[in-house]
Formats: sequence, C-alpha cells, structure tokens
Amino acid sequence: MFIEESAITAPKGFLAAGVSCGLKKSAALDLALVYSQTPAAVAGVYTQNLVKGHSLQRTIKLINNQSKVQAILVNSGNANACVGKEGLEDAESIANAIAQELGCSNEAVLTCSTGVIGQRLPTAKILAGIAKLTQSANASPEAGHKAMSAMMTTDLVPKEVAIQLEIQGKTVTIAGMAKGSGMIHPNLATMIGIITTDAGISNSVLQQLLKRAVAHSFNRVTVDGDTSVCDSVILLANGESGVSINLDSPECDSFYQGLEAICQSLAKKLAADGEGATKLVEVEVKHAPSAQDAYLILLAICRSPLCKTAIFGEDANWGRFITAAGYSGAQFNPEKISIAIGDLLLCEQGVALPFDEIKAKEILSQKEIYICLDLHQGEYWDRMWTCDYSYDYIKINGSYRS
Amino acid sequence: MFIEESAITAPKGFLAAGVSCGLKKSAALDLALVYSQTPAAVAGVYTQNLVKGHSLQRTIKLINNQSKVQAILVNSGNANACVGKEGLEDAESIANAIAQELGCSNEAVLTCSTGVIGQRLPTAKILAGIAKLTQSANASPEAGHKAMSAMMTTDLVPKEVAIQLEIQGKTVTIAGMAKGSGMIHPNLATMIGIITTDAGISNSVLQQLLKRAVAHSFNRVTVDGDTSVCDSVILLANGESGVSINLDSPECDSFYQGLEAICQSLAKKLAADGEGATKLVEVEVKHAPSAQDAYLILLAICRSPLCKTAIFGEDANWGRFITAAGYSGAQFNPEKISIAIGDLLLCEQGVALPFDEIKAKEILSQKEIYICLDLHQGEYWDRMWTCDYSYDYIKINGSYRS
Repeated sequence: MFIEESAITAPKGFLAAGVSCGLKKSAALDLALVYSQTPAAVAGVYTQNLVKGHSLQRTIKLINNQSKVQAILVNSGNANACVGKEGLEDAESIANAIAQELGCSNEAVLTCSTGVIGQRLPTAKILAGIAKLTQSANASPEAGHKAMSAMMTTDLVPKEVAIQLEIQGKTVTIAGMAKGSGMIHPNLATMIGIITTDAGISNSVLQQLLKRAVAHSFNRVTVDGDTSVCDSVILLANGESGVSINLDSPECDSFYQGLEAICQSLAKKLAADGEGATKLVEVEVKHAPSAQDAYLILLAICRSPLCKTAIFGEDANWGRFITAAGYSGAQFNPEKISIAIGDLLLCEQGVALPFDEIKAKEILSQKEIYICLDLHQGEYWDRMWTCDYSYDYIKINGSYRS
Repeated sequence: MFIEESAITAPKGFLAAGVSCGLKKSAALDLALVYSQTPAAVAGVYTQNLVKGHSLQRTIKLINNQSKVQAILVNSGNANACVGKEGLEDAESIANAIAQELGCSNEAVLTCSTGVIGQRLPTAKILAGIAKLTQSANASPEAGHKAMSAMMTTDLVPKEVAIQLEIQGKTVTIAGMAKGSGMIHPNLATMIGIITTDAGISNSVLQQLLKRAVAHSFNRVTVDGDTSVCDSVILLANGESGVSINLDSPECDSFYQGLEAICQSLAKKLAADGEGATKLVEVEVKHAPSAQDAYLILLAICRSPLCKTAIFGEDANWGRFITAAGYSGAQFNPEKISIAIGDLLLCEQGVALPFDEIKAKEILSQKEIYICLDLHQGEYWDRMWTCDYSYDYIKINGSYRS
C-alpha cells in the first residue's frame, strides 16, 4: 500500500520544486514549492505557541478565510518571526511573486518559513529564486525530493511517504513530507508537514480528518519538549482522482486510515531523526484511569532528559521511568504499576523484579526501543514516540545559530 | 554575616559525621549523621512526586506526628525506593541502630536515602558502619564536611553555608548543606537539604518559615526538569542559642531573612553544580500579568534544552527564549516583551534589535549569566536559577546506574 519511491508529487495533479537561493550558509536547497494544477481544498493545524511567525500568521488567516488554494511556498534558513510589521509584508511580497508566476491569486499561495528567529527575511534573494523555482516545478519524484530537501534545517534525512488506496474502484493517493528535528513536541513544533492527496474532499471534512490524524501522530512525538513559532501541517486535496469523499462514509474511513498512516509514518521519522538521536523510542501507557493521565505520563517520560540519556546509555534504569510518571501530574497508584522494556518485565506492582541484565542490554542496543507502563487501574491507552539524548544533541544546539 | 568555614555543625549543640560503609563502588563516604545533643523542633518540605522512597515515607510520617527529633541519618548510593514493604523495615532497622547508639527513641531519628531506585538497601553494610559513625560524630567543621561528602552522588562540589545573626543581643546561627546535581526541579528534586539552627522555635512556626524560604529558593531552581522520589529539606532548631523566636515578631523577620539567605545560597550552588553545568544562569521575569504567568515562563525557559544548549554554546539566540515563553502556557502579549542578556537588550516590543555580537559573546562567556524578560504588562515578578546543558550532562546520565 505504501509507495516505494515516495514523494509529495505522487498524487495526481501535484508538482513540486526545490532550489537554492542563498538563505543558508552553504549552497543547500532552501526554497520549496508544492503546487496543485487545479485549486485544492485545504486544512491546517498549527503551533499552539503564543508567538507565531509572520509567514505562518498569514497562512492561518488564509486557511481560515479561503475555500481553495494552489501553492505552498516554504523557505528554510529564516523563520520570518519577531521582526515586526515588515514580516507580514515580506511574506506577502514573496507570495505575490509566486502568484504572478503561476497565474493564480495571492490568496491561493500559502507561506511557511523555518529557521532563525528575529532576522528579516532576505526577500531579494527569494524573489531572485522564484522564476527558477516555478519553472523547474514538475510531477517527478525527483522534484518532490528536492522540495523535501529545501525544507530541511538540522534534519539529517528526508522524511517522505506516500500511500495508494482503492476507493470506489479508483486509486486515491496520499503523500506527505515533513521537516523537523529539534524543538519537537506535541501541539506541533519546529516542524512543517505538507500532505497532498488527489481525493476530493471539502475543506470542513478535511479539517476534521487532519485534526484527528495529527492528534494520533504529530501530537504524539517529542524530541526535546520545545515547540516553535512557525509550525504547521497543511493538507491539500485537489480531487484529481475523481473520487469524492463525504463524512461518515466507508470511503471516509478508508481515507482516514490512509491519512493517519501517512501522519504516523512521518511522526516516527521525525522522532527517529531527532537532533542527535541514535534510537527511536515508542512509549505506551496501558490501563490508565483517564486519557489525560495516560498522556501526562507519556509526556513526562518522553521529555525527561534522564529517561532519554538512560536509553542513550542502553541502561535499563526503569527507576527513571517510574519517577517521571510520578511527577507527571497524572493521578495513579504507583503500587499497581508494571514496567517493561521490549518483552522484559522490570517492575511489577511498583516493585523491582530481578531481571536478566544481558537480555536488557540486548534489547536496549537495538535501534528501536519499546517501553510499556501498565498502570492496571483503568481502561485508557495512549502512545508517544521520542528519541534518546546524545552528545550530538548538545553539539547541534550549542552551535546552531552561529 | 556568612561564616567563612561553613559547616552544618556551626550552630550550638549540633554534631555531625560521615563514614564509608561500602554503598558506593568506590571507598567514598556514603553514610552521614547530623545530631542535636538536645531534642530539636523540626520542619520538612518534600518531593511532590507520587512515588516516594521508603526512607522518606518514614521521615514524613515522623515529622507529621512528632514534636521533637534528634538525628538525621542520610545514606547515598541507594534510594531505598520501589522495593516493596521491606523498604520501610530496612529504614526502621537502621534508625533503630542509630537510636540505640545515641540513646534516643527510634522516632527521634529521621532517615533519608538517595541513589539508585529499585534495589534493596544493603542494611548489613549500614549497620556495620553505624558504631563508627556515631563514635566519630563531633562539632568540628571537618565533621560537618564529612557529613556533606557522604550525602553526595553526582555532585562535584560540596554545598555548605552558614550565617550568624544578632537577635536579642545574642548570636543565632543557621547552617545548611545540600546535595543534588541532576533531577533538580521545583517542588524538590534529587536533592537533600539539611538545615540546623540553635534558635528556639516551635514546630509550627518553623514549618511556616521553611515552606516560605523553600518557595523562594529550592523551588526556584531547575537542572533538567526531573524530580525524584527521595527529596526533602529538613530543618532542625534546638534552641541552644537561648533565643526564642515567635511568629510575626521583628526577631522572626530577622531569622527568616537568614533562613532565606541560607536556602538561596544552597539553591544557587545546586544550579551551578548541575550535572555537566559550565554556567550558573539566573532568569528573571518582570511586569508579568500574574504570579503564575511569571512562574510558567521561568519554568519553560529554565528547563528548555534549546535555551540551555544555546547558553552552553555562548550564543545570544534570544529567539529560543521568546519561543519558550510563548509555549509556556503563560498568557501574555508577545508584542510587548523585551529580552536582555546581562545589560544588553536584544529584543524590544517583541521585535529583534540590532545588537553588538561581540558584547553578547563577552557576556555569555562569563560563568554567571543573567537573563531578563520584561513583559511590560503587569506587576508580578519572579526569578529562577538553572544551568547550561553540556556534553557532560549526557555523559553523566548515559552511564550513571551501571
């Protein structure tokens, strides 16, 4: 069902491009375009940070007001945030240039910026790159990969995924790509996710489905507990597959499953490529007294530097997990809890079990680690992804800006 | 007013000792005693973690039930936590041995344990060390320093402070010592603080004063956002100075000022000796709309790995500070905020200012960094201490248990 060479251009009618216009110190790609040949329905989910970048403020306003869009312009290297009223004008001017090239309205062009905060967007450089960007846009996987590369900041690997579904005897494709490595936390983070589909769906249905899928994916991943000012997941649906999807239909269920799979796949890729990460960690809480309790425990563990360094050190130090659960704010009885790493039970009814340290080391030496806390006191379940903390996290973030 | 060679034995009538009984892998000191020759009033403040170590559970119960105590026994190397009902029996048996040696009741001996979670306390080793411990107890500064050393886990430096006050024409002394380096966060942490004074104060007044002083000191310091299961600040007052202190008197104000100074001095020492720390960081929030808003912003910045790595990297990346404020949960208008590092203003009314990067680097290369966020939208003020995140934090915590 997943497509082997995934790219954001997989659904019908979507083009993409990525070019370098000098926003980054190296000659790396830094300007990305995703373009639907026909106007597309749109949905968006954004950072909950009180501080929002100017490009994102503009995008939120457009998605809230508008019915259809055609393009998303993403720049890396500069967040276009905290620079005053010029920030909005800068976003407007680059959107305007794209609109002229593509022959659509300004309002059909969304803008996303990611990078350093507090520096004016170098619009002259971007404007100089726009003709090359639009002219190179095409529907090939390579063009999609270039758009992906142009969104990346401290990411080490591109994150792209696409899926094909059979709905009403026709093929519907959903594709997604995401950037983000540090400052990743529920309620979005220094991430930008773009999802395209050739299904035909109304804005309002699209918004409902996206919100639900994000809750089970991007809002269940944390790298460092920080969330940023620019972040968004935007979903475009252009209907080019000829399949229309209405709410509460079997088609809608199929489409939602595909959308959730795309979002979860990208979310796990974000965690696995967390700054300095050497391991992907999945933490599960079972039998919690409430959904909120399950979530609070996950959040505490997944952002705890002590839990994350223990995993980096491949040390089955489950005391740090029960400790994080204990201070999470969740209400539970610690004397009922059991904790396992992989299939190895380390603690039962809140009490240490003797366990095979060699087996524990073997489990923790894997690239993917599964940790389960069973509270044995309710019916609620939740799951979150994170990564370990390594020396490289410090290296990357001790020297990112300069 | 601060005493040059500070030790927990500075107030009249207090003895201390520290010995090695083999709880740590090295031959380091690991068993500490603080002893008042006469029964002392007592107050305590404890971790808010749902999970509490067995030694601490016992201490909390005693402080809640009892009027006077004489001794505090602290072991490092083992937290005596999450081991089941034997944990309480173990704490009871070592307290019993101390009580027999000192000729006081079991209930007059408090117990504190810090170290690894989930392993039975090696009581045989501790019992074998107790005679040496009580016999070596004396009132010298050296004995106090040994008790301090015996509490340390990943601490690099001892943290001791003492102060002398003139009250009613007599000298009142307050002394404190604290251990704790990682897992430090408001509402106490992997820290143990012991404070002694020869002032005469009732348990209930002592508890009020300690709670207030802790709110302005230990609850305003964070190293990594983690809080542990064993942590406590315990204050003993034996009245040997001949000075009695009643609530709401001028003497009480003087005493409180001294107590707060002791607690703040220790809290700053904890932050400065945070695991892997290279810098002590003081963050201040001014003119916040509410006390809670000020506190939330401080908490978000002081625990943010991105802010802490920026300080380690000596990078004036104030965007990370405004970002942390933005996601802190505090309600404020980001367009009114100004941010300064030292005396260098970097951001005003939410907008980047051009600033002298050389000056910024000079400020950030100091060992003590001051950061101020002025919200310009209210009357509330607060302050918190933290440290930077370095490679050594990862090293220490990637290999602590094993």
